Amino acid sequence: MTARPPAVILCEPQLGENIGTAARAMANFGLVDLRIVNPRDGWPSEKARAAASRADHVIDKVQVFDSVEAAIADLQFVFATTARSREVPKPVRGPDESARKSVEFGEKGHATGYLFGRERWGLNNEEVALADEIVTLPVDPDFASLNIAQAVLVCAYEWRKTATSGALPFILSEDEHPPAKKDDLLRFFEHLEGALDEATFFRPPERRPHMVRTLRNIFQKAELTEQEVRALRGVVASLEKRQTRVRKERSTDGGEE
Amino acid sequence: MTARPPAVILCEPQLGENIGTAARAMANFGLVDLRIVNPRDGWPSEKARAAASRADHVIDKVQVFDSVEAAIADLQFVFATTARSREVPKPVRGPDESARKSVEFGEKGHATGYLFGRERWGLNNEEVALADEIVTLPVDPDFASLNIAQAVLVCAYEWRKTATSGALPFILSEDEHPPAKKDDLLRFFEHLEGALDEATFFRPPERRPHMVRTLRNIFQKAELTEQEVRALRGVVASLEKRQTRVRKERSTDGGEE
Repeated sequence: MTARPPAVILCEPQLGENIGTAARAMANFGLVDLRIVNPRDGWPSEKARAAASRADHVIDKVQVFDSVEAAIADLQFVFATTARSREVPKPVRGPDESARKSVEFGEKGHATGYLFGRERWGLNNEEVALADEIVTLPVDPDFASLNIAQAVLVCAYEWRKTATSGALPFILSEDEHPPAKKDDLLRFFEHLEGALDEATFFRPPERRPHMVRTLRNIFQKAELTEQEVRALRGVVASLEKRQTRVRKERSTDGGEE
Repeated sequence: MTARPPAVILCEPQLGENIGTAARAMANFGLVDLRIVNPRDGWPSEKARAAASRADHVIDKVQVFDSVEAAIADLQFVFATTARSREVPKPVRGPDESARKSVEFGEKGHATGYLFGRERWGLNNEEVALADEIVTLPVDPDFASLNIAQAVLVCAYEWRKTATSGALPFILSEDEHPPAKKDDLLRFFEHLEGALDEATFFRPPERRPHMVRTLRNIFQKAELTEQEVRALRGVVASLEKRQTRVRKERSTDGGEE
C-alpha cells in the first residue's frame, strides 16, 4: 500500500466521543491525519481518547483549526460528505468512487481529504462550496441517520479496500489446507461406493449410476481439502468395520455359521 | 431493490448500546431482521433503544434465542464474521464478496444471515463451524479493533450497495443543472478573448494562440452548466464595462478628449 491516505476533517463536532470513534474507525483502515475545526468542548478531550480505543497515534496528532479554509489549506482535492441534496452543481459520488479518486491522487503523493459536518445539521453551503466533489452514502432514503463516526468508517473502509485492492488480513491458508487432488477424491468415491455396494445400499441396482452421480456431486461441491478426504475415508472405513461387525454378530446370533 | 435482506445475529452481546448501534446501522442500509443470542443484560433493553436512534422498527422486531443453532435454524446460508484466522478450512471473504453472495441468494428469496461474535472474543470455533463461509474486514493488521456495531455497519453497507447497484439517495440533478452546449461555451470563449484583446492582455501577440488554448482548457475541465456559462459571461461583461469606464476616466483626467 503506497497511496498517501486522505485527511479527515471534522467540522465543529460537538461530542468528544464522536471524535474518538471516528479516530478508531480511521485507525482500522490506515488513516492517521485527523483535523478538527472548532470542537465545541475544546481539545484535548479525554472522552475522545477513551472512545478512540487505543488509536492514540491518531489522537496524539490531531490538529485543531478555527476555520475549514485553514483546515484544508494544504490539501489538493477535497470531498464534502453530505446526507442531502444541495443546490451546488458539483459531482455527487458514492464512497467507492471517491475512494478511487483519493487513491489515484494519493498514489502520486497528492493530499486529499474528506470533510464531515456537524452532528445536527452537517455542512453549510459555503463549506460544501470549498470542496471539489460531494460524497454521499447509499443509505435507505426512508431511514437515513448515520452519525459522523459511521460515515467516517464507511469512507475509510472504502479507501483502504481500494488502496490495498481488497487485501484481507488473513485468508484460508492453502499451504496448510491444500485442495485434494482428483485422484484422492476418486479413490474416496470408489471406497465409499464399494462400501455401499457391500451394504446393498443401491436398490434397485439400475438406480446405481444415478445415485453415484448424486453422491459424487455432493462431495465435489464441498471443495474438499486433502485432510478432509482423509477424514472421510476414515469415516467410511469405520462404518464398514461396524457393519462387518454387526453382520458377523447377526450371523453368530442366527447360528448360521 | 428486490433481494431479501440478510438477518444479523449477535452472539451473546454484552452492551445494550452495541445492540442499538447495530440496529441503527442496519436500518440505514435497509436491514430489519435482528436476532440476539443470550444478551448478557437481558431483553428488552432501554439502552439499546436509545442507541438505535429511531430505528424502532428494527428494535421492536428483535428475536431472542438461547443458542446460535436456534437463531440460524431457518436460514439457508450463513456467514460468520471473525477478526482473526481460524483453523477451520472455510472460504474467507471480504464484506463485498459476501454481499454478492447474500444478494444472489436473496434475489431467489433464500434466507441468509451474518453472525457476529462477542465484544471481547468474538465467536468460538464451534460457532464458526455452523456457518458456510467466513467474512473478515480488510482492516490494518497493525490496528484491528472494530466493535460489533462497526462490523455490522460495513457488512450492511456492502449489502445495500450491491443490492441497489450503488444507487445514491440523491445525485446532481441534470434537469436543474444541464451541462452547457458547446455553442454556448464557444460564444463565452470568444466573448472573453475579445474582452482580453481590448484590454491588450495577449502580449506578445504571437503568444495569443497558446494563451487562448490554456484558458479554454481551464473552462473545459470545469464541465460547466448552462447557468455557470451565463454567470461567467456576466463576469466578463462587468469587467469590460469597468475597464471601459476606467479608460474613459483616464482620458478625461488626461484631458486628451
